[in-house]
Amino acid sequence: MLTPKYILLAFILLLNSVPVFSQNNFGIVIHGGAGTILKKNMTPEKEKAYKAKLEEAIREGHTILKEGGSSVEAIEATLNILEDSPLFNAGKGAVFTAEGKNELDASIMEGKTLQVGAVAGVTTVKNPISLARKVMENSPHVLLAREGAEQFAKEQGLTLVAPSYFHTEQRMKSLKKVKEAEKDKKGKDGKTGFYDADIQDTKFGTVGCVALDKQGNLAAGTSTGGMTNKKWGRIGDSPIIGAGTYANNKTCAISSTGWGEYFIRGVVAYDISALMEYKGLSLKAATEEVIQKKLTQLGGTGGIVAIDKEGNVSMEFNTAGMYRASMDKEGKLYIGIYEE
Amino acid sequence: MLTPKYILLAFILLLNSVPVFSQNNFGIVIHGGAGTILKKNMTPEKEKAYKAKLEEAIREGHTILKEGGSSVEAIEATLNILEDSPLFNAGKGAVFTAEGKNELDASIMEGKTLQVGAVAGVTTVKNPISLARKVMENSPHVLLAREGAEQFAKEQGLTLVAPSYFHTEQRMKSLKKVKEAEKDKKGKDGKTGFYDADIQDTKFGTVGCVALDKQGNLAAGTSTGGMTNKKWGRIGDSPIIGAGTYANNKTCAISSTGWGEYFIRGVVAYDISALMEYKGLSLKAATEEVIQKKLTQLGGTGGIVAIDKEGNVSMEFNTAGMYRASMDKEGKLYIGIYEE
Repeated sequence: MLTPKYILLAFILLLNSVPVFSQNNFGIVIHGGAGTILKKNMTPEKEKAYKAKLEEAIREGHTILKEGGSSVEAIEATLNILEDSPLFNAGKGAVFTAEGKNELDASIMEGKTLQVGAVAGVTTVKNPISLARKVMENSPHVLLAREGAEQFAKEQGLTLVAPSYFHTEQRMKSLKKVKEAEKDKKGKDGKTGFYDADIQDTKFGTVGCVALDKQGNLAAGTSTGGMTNKKWGRIGDSPIIGAGTYANNKTCAISSTGWGEYFIRGVVAYDISALMEYKGLSLKAATEEVIQKKLTQLGGTGGIVAIDKEGNVSMEFNTAGMYRASMDKEGKLYIGIYEE
Repeated sequence: MLTPKYILLAFILLLNSVPVFSQNNFGIVIHGGAGTILKKNMTPEKEKAYKAKLEEAIREGHTILKEGGSSVEAIEATLNILEDSPLFNAGKGAVFTAEGKNELDASIMEGKTLQVGAVAGVTTVKNPISLARKVMENSPHVLLAREGAEQFAKEQGLTLVAPSYFHTEQRMKSLKKVKEAEKDKKGKDGKTGFYDADIQDTKFGTVGCVALDKQGNLAAGTSTGGMTNKKWGRIGDSPIIGAGTYANNKTCAISSTGWGEYFIRGVVAYDISALMEYKGLSLKAATEEVIQKKLTQLGGTGGIVAIDKEGNVSMEFNTAGMYRASMDKEGKLYIGIYEE
C-alpha cells in the first residue's frame, strides 16, 4: 500500500542509488613531452610505439581510479610505466647533462591537503616520482637534492640502480648532436647556442600526469631528465611546485612540460590555478591564457595537461606537438601527438 | 614680451622641471628573518647590533637608488652587507645542516623582464645573492645547485671561501640545541621532533630585500642558510621563484622568510602578486590575506617584505617578530623587530 511512509522510503532509496556526480566522477590525463614533433619526422613504427606506451600507462592509472584508488596512487603507477620506458625523457630514457650524466627531477602534489614532495638531480633512483611521493609522505621537507635525496631514497627502501642504467644510445647521440650544433652557433656570451631555435627542441621531453579520483581529490605529478646538455647542476621546472606541478581541490591539477626556465619565470602551473580561483576563468580559458598568451609572449615553449574538480580536461601547448592521452570516467580514451 | 611662443616655452620648461611621480619615486625594504623574537629574550646590546646592521644595509641600497642605480644593484649591495654579518642566517652567519655543514640558497628576480637567477646548496660562495645575479645575467639557466653552481661561480670570478668560513660558534650551539631537543621529542614517524613548536623557531632567519628604482623597476632578492638541522640536501623556499622571491613591474616585489616548506606549498610570493593582478587587491590587502589567512590556515609561520610599483610598502608576519627596515624616497627610515 502506498502510504506516505512508503513513498518517502522509496524516495530515499532512489536518492541513494543515484550516484552524486562529483563523488563518482573521475579522470586522468598524461603527457610525454612537448616540442617540434612533426609527422614528417616520425616513422609509423615510432608513432605506434609511443601510442602503445601512452595507452599502457594511462590504462594503469585509470584502473586504479576506477577501483577507488587515490589520485596520488594512480599518478605514481602511471608515471612509473613512462619512467621505465626509454621512449620518454624521464627515468630510463633521461637525457644527458653536458658532463655526460643523467640527473633526474620529479615532484608530486595532492590537491586536498596541498602536501607536496619533490627531488632534484638524483642519479641512482630508478623511479624519481616514487621518491617524490616518499618525500611528501615521510619527510619533514618538501624538496630534496642530489646525494641527500639519494640517501633518503635508500632509507625509504626505494629501488636504486647504477647510474649506467640511465645510459641509452639514443640520448647519447642527442647530446653529441646538441654539442656539435652549439659549437657552431655559440656567441661570445655563451648563451646564443643554448637559445638557438634550431637546436633547443632536441632538448625537451618530460612525463606528467594529473588525475581526479572518486573521492573528488585532485593530484599532479611530473618526472624528467631535464634538458640535454644542461650545465652546472641546473634544476628545471619539474621539481618546482607552482611551475612544473600544482594541484588544489579548489581549482585544478596541472603538469607542465617544455622549456623549464620559462615555466619557472612564469610560475605557469600556479598561474592557471590563480586565474581560475581569482578571476573565475574556466580550466580551458585559464590554460589557453597562460600557454598561448603569457608563456608565448615571454618567449617560452611547451605545454601542460590539466584536469579540474569537475573532470574537465585541458591539453594545451604552443609547440608543434605534445605526446598526450586522456581517459574519462566512461573509459573513453584519447591519444594525440600532433596539433589538431 | 609675453608672446604666445614664450608662454609655450615657459610651459614646456615648467613641465620638464616637475618630476613625474612614477619616474622619480623609489624605495627599499629589507628583512633579516622572522620567528619567536621576543623582547624578553633580547639584550639591549643585541638589539642595538641588529638595528645598526639593518640600518647600514638599507642605507647602502638607498644611496644606490637615490643616485639612479637599478633595483637589482641596490638589492645585491644591501644583501651583501647582511650576508657578511654573522647576525643573520645567510652568508657568514648561515645555520648548520644535520651533518654539520653550511649549505646556502639565494634567488633574485627583476620585475621589468621577469628574468630570474637562483642557487641552491652552495658551500664555498661568500655571497650567494651575487651568484644568483650572475646566474640571471650570464647563464642560460635560472636555478643551479651545489657543485655545479660552485663551478659556475668560479667561472664567473666570484669570491670563493673555504667551507669553514661559515662556521660560527653561535650557529653550532643552535644545531646542538635543536638536535638535543629533537632527540627527546622524536616520534616513531621521525617527523614529530621537526614539527615541534618549541624548537622550530630556533631554525629560521633569512635575509631579503625588495626595491623600486627611479626608472620604475621593481626587483626582489632573498639569501639564506636554510633551517638548522636540515637533512638530505633539503632546499627551502628562498631559491624558489614564486615561493621565496617574486617581482613583477605590473604588481609588486616580494621576499619571504620563515618555514620554507609552507611557503613552497602556498606559492606565497606569487600568490600576493596574483591577488593584486587578478582580484585588484592593494599590496596591503594582498599581503594580509596571504600571510595572516592563507599561510596561517595551512599551519605555516613567517613573513614577507614587499613594495609595489607606487612605492607602497608592506612588512607582514604571523610570528612574534621580524627583523625589518624600510626607507622611502625622502630618506625616512623605519626599523622594527617586534610586533607593533
